[in-house]
Formats: sequence, C-alpha cells, structure tokens
Amino acid sequence: MASELETAAPDIAAQLPEPQICRLTVSCPNKPGIVASITTALFGHGADVREAHHYCDSETGRLFVRITFSLSRAVELDTVRADFTPLAESRRMTWALGPADERKKVLILVSRFDHCLVDLLYRWRIGELAMEPVGILSNHPRETFADTDFGEIPFHFLPVTKSNKAVQEARIKALVTDTGADLVILARYMQILSDDLAAHLSGRCINIHHSFLPGFKGAKPYHQAHSRGVKLIGATAHYVTADLDEGPIIEQDVERVSHQDTPADLIRKGRDIERRVLARAVSFHLNGRAFLNGATTVVFGD
Amino acid sequence: MASELETAAPDIAAQLPEPQICRLTVSCPNKPGIVASITTALFGHGADVREAHHYCDSETGRLFVRITFSLSRAVELDTVRADFTPLAESRRMTWALGPADERKKVLILVSRFDHCLVDLLYRWRIGELAMEPVGILSNHPRETFADTDFGEIPFHFLPVTKSNKAVQEARIKALVTDTGADLVILARYMQILSDDLAAHLSGRCINIHHSFLPGFKGAKPYHQAHSRGVKLIGATAHYVTADLDEGPIIEQDVERVSHQDTPADLIRKGRDIERRVLARAVSFHLNGRAFLNGATTVVFGD
Amino acid sequence: MASELETAAPDIAAQLPEPQICRLTVSCPNKPGIVASITTALFGHGADVREAHHYCDSETGRLFVRITFSLSRAVELDTVRADFTPLAESRRMTWALGPADERKKVLILVSRFDHCLVDLLYRWRIGELAMEPVGILSNHPRETFADTDFGEIPFHFLPVTKSNKAVQEARIKALVTDTGADLVILARYMQILSDDLAAHLSGRCINIHHSFLPGFKGAKPYHQAHSRGVKLIGATAHYVTADLDEGPIIEQDVERVSHQDTPADLIRKGRDIERRVLARAVSFHLNGRAFLNGATTVVFGD
Amino acid sequence: MASELETAAPDIAAQLPEPQICRLTVSCPNKPGIVASITTALFGHGADVREAHHYCDSETGRLFVRITFSLSRAVELDTVRADFTPLAESRRMTWALGPADERKKVLILVSRFDHCLVDLLYRWRIGELAMEPVGILSNHPRETFADTDFGEIPFHFLPVTKSNKAVQEARIKALVTDTGADLVILARYMQILSDDLAAHLSGRCINIHHSFLPGFKGAKPYHQAHSRGVKLIGATAHYVTADLDEGPIIEQDVERVSHQDTPADLIRKGRDIERRVLARAVSFHLNGRAFLNGATTVVFGD
Repeated sequence: MASELETAAPDIAAQLPEPQICRLTVSCPNKPGIVASITTALFGHGADVREAHHYCDSETGRLFVRITFSLSRAVELDTVRADFTPLAESRRMTWALGPADERKKVLILVSRFDHCLVDLLYRWRIGELAMEPVGILSNHPRETFADTDFGEIPFHFLPVTKSNKAVQEARIKALVTDTGADLVILARYMQILSDDLAAHLSGRCINIHHSFLPGFKGAKPYHQAHSRGVKLIGATAHYVTADLDEGPIIEQDVERVSHQDTPADLIRKGRDIERRVLARAVSFHLNGRAFLNGATTVVFGD
Repeated sequence: MASELETAAPDIAAQLPEPQICRLTVSCPNKPGIVASITTALFGHGADVREAHHYCDSETGRLFVRITFSLSRAVELDTVRADFTPLAESRRMTWALGPADERKKVLILVSRFDHCLVDLLYRWRIGELAMEPVGILSNHPRETFADTDFGEIPFHFLPVTKSNKAVQEARIKALVTDTGADLVILARYMQILSDDLAAHLSGRCINIHHSFLPGFKGAKPYHQAHSRGVKLIGATAHYVTADLDEGPIIEQDVERVSHQDTPADLIRKGRDIERRVLARAVSFHLNGRAFLNGATTVVFGD
Repeated sequence: MASELETAAPDIAAQLPEPQICRLTVSCPNKPGIVASITTALFGHGADVREAHHYCDSETGRLFVRITFSLSRAVELDTVRADFTPLAESRRMTWALGPADERKKVLILVSRFDHCLVDLLYRWRIGELAMEPVGILSNHPRETFADTDFGEIPFHFLPVTKSNKAVQEARIKALVTDTGADLVILARYMQILSDDLAAHLSGRCINIHHSFLPGFKGAKPYHQAHSRGVKLIGATAHYVTADLDEGPIIEQDVERVSHQDTPADLIRKGRDIERRVLARAVSFHLNGRAFLNGATTVVFGD
Repeated sequence: MASELETAAPDIAAQLPEPQICRLTVSCPNKPGIVASITTALFGHGADVREAHHYCDSETGRLFVRITFSLSRAVELDTVRADFTPLAESRRMTWALGPADERKKVLILVSRFDHCLVDLLYRWRIGELAMEPVGILSNHPRETFADTDFGEIPFHFLPVTKSNKAVQEARIKALVTDTGADLVILARYMQILSDDLAAHLSGRCINIHHSFLPGFKGAKPYHQAHSRGVKLIGATAHYVTADLDEGPIIEQDVERVSHQDTPADLIRKGRDIERRVLARAVSFHLNGRAFLNGATTVVFGD
C-alpha cells in the first residue's frame, strides 16, 4: 500500500504508514455537479478514491453513490462527517460514512427451517459477513435449533397466533429499537408481516423466497413447478415492503432441475439456492452495495 | 469401434466393420417387464446398447424410453421395426425406431424478429441440428429477412389479419401436411395460434418466449421486470398447447442483468437467451430426448 | 403409487400396499445382451423399473448401469441378490443391489479449513445426504472445530509430520477398515496422500480442490488467477488417484469474479464453490450415480 | 428524460430538449484528487453524470475511470476535449471522450471456422455492437464463407505459409493503419501472431480460445478434457500479447458437459461458448468498459 500513500498530500500521508479504508454511500435527488461536490469534499481531507460507483436513475431522478477511499489515520472520521453534513443536508442526502469494515447490527428472524440461519451464522463466524448478530428471533422454541450453537447471541421465542400477532409485532419493533439493529433478516421467517411492520422496516429488512420461471401463484408452488416440467428453480432476496413477496429485488439465482426431481427434490435444491442468494443479498447490504430505489434497487455488484 | 463388434454375436458382427447406430424412443403406459421386453427384443437382432434412459412417471403412470444402440449393417431396420410392432401395439406404445442421425423435417414460423431463425439456420448449416428445413413461413414479407440467405428453403408469406386468421391457419395446417413436417418451430412467431391449431400441432410444435422470476403478467414484461429490479432474465421453450405461453417446458435458461440495464438492454439480452434456449429445445426434440408427458415433459438431457 | 402396483404381477403385488424402492448399480465389460439379461433378471422378481441409465463407453469398452426399481415387500432382497450373482459373476460385474435409501458409511478427513466439513454435516443432519458419518479425522486438534457440534461422531486427531506420515497413514487405513467406511471424503484435507494410500482408496475417496480457466501451476493459484484477471473461479471434485489433483472428475462448478476481487475475495468465493461442488459429488456417489471409468468417470446426473 | 434536464444549470439546459449522451474513459497513474478534478472539469461544462465507475488498482497504482454523462447539445465536444487536455496531459492519462454511441472501426480476422464471425456480423446488423466493420481478413478464400453475406465489408484473402508469414503480417499491419481500425478481432484466426505484431496490436486486439478447468496443455485439448471427465468446458476472451493464449482476460464463460459428450460434442458446445464470450468481450471493449492493466484487466461490467 506504500505506493498510494506516497502520492497523497505530504502533510497528511507522511505521518502514518497505514491509511484507514472508509466508505461513503449516498442516495439523493440528482442535480448536475453533485458528484464533483462529493469527490471534492472528500479530497479536501486528502481522501484517495479506491473504488467508486455513481448511478443516476433517469426514471426516479435519484443519484446513488458508493465510494471506498483511503484516508490518513491522522484525520478523524467525525471531522469528515461534520464537514460533509452541510452538503448532505442541502442536497437532501440519505448517507453514511464510516470505516469500510464496520459491522452492522443484525436481527435474524427464523421459523422452523434453519438452513438460511445456519448458513448466515457460519459465514459470520468465519468473518465473511461484516455483521454483528444482536438477536435471533423465532416463532418456534429454542429446541427447534438444538443442533445449532448460537454462542452469545440472545434468542427470543415469540410464538405467533391469530390473536397475539399485533402484540408480537410490537415486541419485534421494540427489539429492533432496543438492540439498535441496522438490518432485520427474514431468514425463512414464515410469518406475513403486517403492512405496518413492513413499512416500519422498509429498506432495512431483507426477505428470501423461492422463485420460478414462470411464476406460480397460489399454494404448493414446487408442486406446480414440477407439474409443468420447469427446468430451473430459483430464489429471490428482496427488501421488504408491505406486499411481502413483491419487494424490490436485491439478488436472484437459479439451479437446474429435471423431470427426475420430485417436489421434495425441488424443495431440497431450493434450500441451497435460498441460502446462497440470501447470503449474497445480506452481504451487498452490509457492504453498502444495495440501495432501495422506489420499487426497485440499485446494486453495485462485487 | 472394433472392440464392441468383437463382442457381438459372431454370425451378425463378423461381416461388417462399421455397425449402424440406431435409436428407439418409446412412450407408453407402464407395466413391469416392459423394459425387459424391449431390450430383449432389440437383442434378438444383435443390438448392442450404447446409451439408454428409462423413466417411469409415478403420477401419470407412463414409461419413457430412449435407447441408442449399434446394429450390424446386415440387419434391415425394417425387419427390426416389423418384429417390434406386435410388442409396441400390445403395450400401446408411441414409438419411433430409426438411424440415430436421421433428419426430421421442420417448418419454421417467424415474425419480424429473426434472431432465432438466423441462429437455427446457422446451426443447421454447420450440421449441428439434425433437421431438414422444409419451409419458412412468416406473417412478414421476404424483404424483412433480406440479409438472410434461405438457400433452397421455400418461403411462404402469410400475413394475418383478424378477418383472415382462420384461412391462414388452414394454410399452415395444409403446409404441415404437404411438407410432411415432423416439427413446427415457432421461432418468435408473434401470432397466437387458435386452440384448434394448437391442439392439431400438440407435441410437435415448439415455442420460445421470455421468462422472469417472478413472472410478470400483462403487457411490457421487460419494463415490469426492470421496474422491480430483477437480476435475472430468462427464456422458456415449451411444447405448444392451446394455452400458448403455458405449455410443458422443454428447456430454460437465464442471464444476469443489473439496474444499469434499460428495458432495451433487457430485450437485447433476452434475444441471446431465446435463441440459445430454443436451439437446445429443438435439438432435444430432434434427438429424441424430449417427450410430452401430459402437462409436463420428460427430457433425457445431454 | 397404487396405479403402478396394479400393473405388477398379481401374485406379488396384491399383498402389500407399499413396495420397496431398490437400486442396482453395475459396471462391467460390455457385451451385447447384458442390458436385456439384467432387466429380465430383475423382472423375474416382479421388479418395476422406475428410472434407469445405461451407458457403454466405446473407448474403455465398459458398460455402466444404474436402475431404480420398485419391488414387492414380499420379496427378500437377499433372494434377488442370490439369484443375480451367477449373472454378475459370469459377466465380471462390479455391482451393488440394495434399498435406494441405504446409507453409506463415510469417514471425513479435514485440516484447518472447516467449510466443507460444516456443510457436509449440516446436509447430513437435515437428511439431504444418504450417509452415516463413522468418523472425522484431522491433522488438527478438536479445538480447531470448537464451534462445530460433532454429535456422536468419533473424532480422531492424527497430526502429520514428515517423520510420522507413514505411521499415520497406516492408522487411516486401519480406521477405514475398522469403521467399515464405504467412502472417504477429503473435505479440504491438506495432506498429500502417498501413492500407496491413494491406490488403496481408489474409487472410494473423493477430494475437492479449486480450479481455474486456464489452470495455474505452482503456488498461490488465487494470486496468479487475480494477476491474470480471471473472470471465473471454480472447484473440482474428483476420485482420488495417486496423482492427487488429477483424478477422474465427478463434478465442477464456477463462480463469477471481477477485478475488484482481491486474492482474499477469490479465496472466500472459492470456499462457497468448494462446499457446493463437494456436496454434489458426494451425493452423486452416495446415490450410485458416479462410477469410476479408467481415468474418467460416468455420472448419471440428477 | 425531461426531469434530468430540469435539474441542469438553466443557461445550458433550457435551450435543447434532448441532451447528448457522452462517455469519458481514463487510465492513468493514481494520485489523490484526480477523481475530483475529472468530475469538476466535466461539471464545468454542465455535464450531468449518469453512471460512473472509478477503480484504483493498489498493485499497479493505476486509476481507471469510465463516466457516462449527459451534456447540452449547445456544448461542442471539441471544446470539452480541448479544456480537458491540460489536465489529461499533466496526469499522463490515456483517455477518450466522445458520444456514448460512437462506433469503433473493427477489422475481423478469421480462419476456416466462421461461427464467431457470423455471430459478430449478425449482432452488428441488428445494432447490438457499436462497431463499423472496415474489413474481414482470412487465410482462407472468400468461398469458405460462401453462405455468409458480407454486404459492403471488404474481404481480404491473405494465405499464410511459413515463408510468407512476415510479408502477410506486414500487410495486416498496413491494413490496420489504412482502415484506421480501432480494434482487431481474432474471431478464431488460427494463426499465431509474431511477437512483433502482437506487441504492435497490444490492447487493441481481442482473441478467443477454449478453456478448461483444469487447463490442458498440448494438442487436442478437447480429447484430453473428455478423457479426464470434465464437467464444464469454457472459453476465454483476452487482449492479445506476445504470448498468444495467455493475455489479460476480458471475459469467460462455461457450459456443462457430461460423459455422454464425445470430443466432437465438446467442440460443438465449445463453439457456442466461444461466440457468446467473444461477443461480450468485444462489446465491453466497444463500450469503453474494458481496460488493459498490465498483465490483467479492469472490466466495468454491465
């Protein structure tokens, strides 16, 4: 990394051998010149851009920016943030500026099927996901996950019935607030969120579900898919909105199947895609790569 | 190939150095013992199985068989067929027995977009598709395809209007009959077939269309897909039934897209998938790998 | 399933509502008529073929057969085996005949990286892999896997040094014998097996390693791949032979990468492919779909 | 597009309803502040960034920039270029600034196999590739491509023998110069370029060849791949360097194969991947998405 430091402004860079790597993400109404303003503001602190994406959606008129930059350790991020705030406010930005390896707090919701949960926890343990699980919440009791080591992560059992749904959702809301969770992951949480909770979590809640080409409406989609001879089954991870299965899509993938696959086989293969797609979508969100953009998304892929 | 011949029954194999490679395909109601009967019948002529697939669908109760075998050139295929007929009839088989490289006659229907047509013709020219095009039919005139060399293949211009649709479909039917076409390929033929014609061509007509996860109903599906942020677009090739876009699926594939892709980009990428998926589906059919199985299919993949 | 039973020979089928589902796998020198002999032998016990694959490799002259069939529970599998034995011996078959859901005993070898081990154990727990782990063996101590619940599976710590390698390999051999392991899985076991041990385990030991297009020889392949700008990284699962990384290939897959991916990112993405490819290869082997065929394989895909 | 114009500086935007869409690409030694300088320079002309990628390679110390922006039609691109030149020179940039839909001149070299050529020409005809073919050159005569309509594109027959290779390469060089070709596409041109010619075309010549996991050295790679049981075959498109098959990789893809595929089948499937991968790589280059970066590349994917 020495070579880049040499090129930085001498008064800033000469003091410390290892710069800090930071990330700025911005979403705001577009106006010509914003990109220049942002990059100029960062350079005011000697920031050296490592990687940047800008995208302006002509339809929604919004601009999305993700910049990874190195910065002398002599510079306080709080100072950079303070200096950036007036620009951010004048352009009505939704923004975040912090260390690139900052861990976001996540709350994981799960029902009986634990393949996504187990996978997320494993990826977290080996340092693959920049997150800090602040809670696991299920409508099934702890015994359902007897084989899985939750370590220090608090577990919350919130069984849901028709009559207590509102109460339990209030508890979920409270838990999100109390834990300071930045992201809620529906890791195969088989409860339909109320419109109110979905709206409350808008843009900070990711869901995963199966997908097919073509789509199948109604019950037993894997059986329907089997009976039509589908050759690909897939999964879709999306931001939650009031309309649960129809939120803005973050990531999708498919797997090949054949006539030999029974509906049970399809479900099994579906599990594999679900956990893979959810992990990627969560990773995109944690790394500031995924933005909500009205009914759609902007994802600066890796 | 010598080694296999040595092992064949001596009275048959010793005479000719190169056996003929043949293929038997069967679809029939299942009964235990059919597979033994079929393979025994073939061995009665000294057939040496190269590759075989059997599949019994528990739901429809039907058995599907595809056997590729080598046979001494001293044996007449007509004799094998004649000997096989009583078994075939007693088991109510739909069956075909012929040289493995036999070319099927195909009639290609196309509208204005010629990417699938051009691709099929190219693959045919380089010997990749075991077919003999006996006609190209379009609701657009020959000039629409001015850049494409049709060689000796007859072209038929059948413009369709509301008032002449029945008449033109009658002509299509007649053309299928007159040319002896084994297969009709809807290579982006943007006319909806009547239920009558669709039923008439059932199991010998392949269509291609775009597909998404999830599916989008109604007009401008690529625009809908774009506005939801889909990350994969796909294509589905299927046997035609009365319900045009919902026939038994033969082949599917997808391509990755992003927020940068405009609806126009999606349509462009869609073309690539469409031609690839259609070519594979047609190839499966021509090679006796694809079977209609009620509302679904059996495809013995390559 | 009633419909198929009705069609079975009445004296066998009428007695029991649910047949047993069995599987026969055969590898032998090809001779015309073998397929007929096999299917006739099975039908002699009223077997109803559900799914069958036959493949004759013209180059090696070997035939490979996998048949799944239903059989009345009144029929003892031992009887079928006994009746099949003379045919099997006369044709010099390597064969197996048993319940389709039979679990094979597996011994898992692992070094420090546990992503494949964790994945295999999870899939086993949820019933996805038809195996019974009879041991986990590592050149690293139990603490390396502190986060992972091994349940009842015995763990064996066999550290390997230059001087004790022969001794430890003898212990591995003994362990394979003592546990009756049908399959040894090198789930990222970073020790090179001696030619002797590799030969001893030939055809019953599966290894996983990274792969690239093009391949890179020598140390730090991920760094080499990065420095050439590879856009795909992959993994290969293969049967072990004396030449460890060059055995007959069972399964492969790839993942897309870009210039943004550091060697560390490539390694992370590689883990995902490795565990997926290994799980599929193991599943193929457990389900009798994978056959060793000289330097290559025959895999009757799902 | 009206909404974006409204937000542009009024003195520039009010005059014309439709802005011009332009593209700037830059490759230069990195220095903090360059990104700010570039975006500020563009905004000086009222440019509105639509989409931008910046990437700094820590290893080579080079920065790569691709910016798509809209600009009032009242602004002359020549003026923007002139104003940008001092910055470009002071930072030693390799750069290009022009209309986003500008067509690059391409010279296509081909031998006997025409699948890539036919595919490129088709994509060009339907407007998918922003190029203008200024010549087709082959070591085989025009008759080899009798089925293909070259339209107005000049064809050059340059047969290569051991003795005339230097002469013919000189002619190729001259042709590149005379036609003003921006890009040379080796669309399955089976002649090894001399180091001199390869160096001469460095960074503006794209080649396509097959790839395998693992790689196979020596003759008949498809036969080698078959004999090892590979399950994926691939293709790699790369910038040409002196070492023909080992240049910096632009794009790769794979296709699934099985034991049933003969070497001839592999070659057939390989064709499909080759044409797809080459078309994508060429498209990346034409759209300013692909940059040479020492021995590797930077590709800002679509």
